[in-house]
Amino acid sequence: MRLIPREEKFFIMLKKISENVVIGAKKLEDLVKDYENVEQKAKEILETEHEGDILTHEIIEALNKTFVTPFDREDIYSLVGRLDDIIDYIEAVTDKLLLYKIKKPTKEVVRMAQIIVESTEEVNKAIVGLKDLKHPRRILDHCIEINRLENEGDKVSREILAKLFETATDAIEAIKWKEIYEHLEMATDKCEDVADIIEGVVVKYA
Amino acid sequence: MRLIPREEKFFIMLKKISENVVIGAKKLEDLVKDYENVEQKAKEILETEHEGDILTHEIIEALNKTFVTPFDREDIYSLVGRLDDIIDYIEAVTDKLLLYKIKKPTKEVVRMAQIIVESTEEVNKAIVGLKDLKHPRRILDHCIEINRLENEGDKVSREILAKLFETATDAIEAIKWKEIYEHLEMATDKCEDVADIIEGVVVKYA
Amino acid sequence: MRLIPREEKFFIMLKKISENVVIGAKKLEDLVKDYENVEQKAKEILETEHEGDILTHEIIEALNKTFVTPFDREDIYSLVGRLDDIIDYIEAVTDKLLLYKIKKPTKEVVRMAQIIVESTEEVNKAIVGLKDLKHPRRILDHCIEINRLENEGDKVSREILAKLFETATDAIEAIKWKEIYEHLEMATDKCEDVADIIEGVVVKYA
Repeated sequence: MRLIPREEKFFIMLKKISENVVIGAKKLEDLVKDYENVEQKAKEILETEHEGDILTHEIIEALNKTFVTPFDREDIYSLVGRLDDIIDYIEAVTDKLLLYKIKKPTKEVVRMAQIIVESTEEVNKAIVGLKDLKHPRRILDHCIEINRLENEGDKVSREILAKLFETATDAIEAIKWKEIYEHLEMATDKCEDVADIIEGVVVKYA
Repeated sequence: MRLIPREEKFFIMLKKISENVVIGAKKLEDLVKDYENVEQKAKEILETEHEGDILTHEIIEALNKTFVTPFDREDIYSLVGRLDDIIDYIEAVTDKLLLYKIKKPTKEVVRMAQIIVESTEEVNKAIVGLKDLKHPRRILDHCIEINRLENEGDKVSREILAKLFETATDAIEAIKWKEIYEHLEMATDKCEDVADIIEGVVVKYA
Repeated sequence: MRLIPREEKFFIMLKKISENVVIGAKKLEDLVKDYENVEQKAKEILETEHEGDILTHEIIEALNKTFVTPFDREDIYSLVGRLDDIIDYIEAVTDKLLLYKIKKPTKEVVRMAQIIVESTEEVNKAIVGLKDLKHPRRILDHCIEINRLENEGDKVSREILAKLFETATDAIEAIKWKEIYEHLEMATDKCEDVADIIEGVVVKYA
């Protein structure tokens, strides 16, 4: 049997990390949908990001101390790094909304936040699936869905950016929104990076 | 003998990938030189980029399944990743030309595209050279040329950006062009990253 | 004993690289504090960056040829890569000051340069400390200080960016300053990346 109890903890820790990313995504969705108490909500997203940092630190410390891992050590490092990137971009969006004193998120921001929620949920399911590499099909289906969501996010952000640059009269406003859309899109890109790593693990071990 | 037939396929696959990057670079050069049927030409560059994704996927799958590789597995991963970055930046330039509804590329854009063609051709030659590590000098000469081209691209893009920021009256236009020049320069940067990885392989095995 | 004489050279080389980064940081601080002979000072920073490239090249060549290393080969690669990033961002700031024909750096730019000097000095101390992994506490204290400085840099750059976007009337000026502050902040971010890698090494070997 590939998995020994001691390694079990990696799955528990990975799951915790990906669940924390989903929590952050949902908080972002709530923030942009219901744009009230922005500072308080932003603070909570920052706390979720800090929680992610602590979890990341823990798993890396465990990795550095454990010599047997359920799958390639470098894949775990990469997974953890990309999961951390997702929550970092989620927090960065929040930060920009505050920093640029955005009055009201556009409907495209709301749509992107929804895509990020869906995508992080698929990421979480794919990661939970890693525990059972004998059923690779299920894992790969989540990866395919993550790719589809990334494409959709890409389409939304490209269209709104094209519109923004055609109609903008205030360049400073255009810079602000461009950065916000780009950060939102980066979050979905990082979900796709996670899917790519998971696919690699599946190919190696399934 | 270091190379066994089974590993031969890595060289064939690597060569295919780097040839595909050259194809993408040439399509970009054609697009910006002869700025007609822009949407159709952009579509073809996107197809070349997709082709690159498929080739990348294939080599990574093969890597994950093969235990003996002609040189360090991580170097192959890095090479493939950076080659993919080159074609991604080429496609991103095309995308921005369309997205920002650019009427006509400047002569600096054309010059940068030419540099990218030359650089990707050198990348392709260096990669083909990897099959014959007993002649490291030839491989390294291509790497030196890639570095020279990156410096030239850097100079072109720095000068045009300085000019742009001195003379621009329309900030939105400045943002658009800045992004296009930066993406063009990133393509040459990624060629240099490939050269660095190849130099590392040469030092290790030659 | 873990360290054999042949490996000693890695510490000497790493120390040289991190000292070179401190030199670059101090030159940047001098440039922005005493904004005279800007072109000459910028040229010297570029030379420091080139010196860093040569040192990086040497250590990577040595790494590729040596099979026994004092700690994980990949950690040394990562360390060297991030140290190179720090000096690259320092040089990039200089480059932007010239490129954008900045008349006078703001007091926030000076503050950020000071933070970068302090942070690179801590980086250097932490790297020197790696030779003596039996005293991990000292090394980790430097890492904590690097994290504190990164937070401070983050705070300075966020506040000035918020102010900039609130008060800017000239969007092109806003773009220029935004890029300069972001590059300054990236230098402190890369110091933090170095601290993270060092913490990992300490956990593994101490």
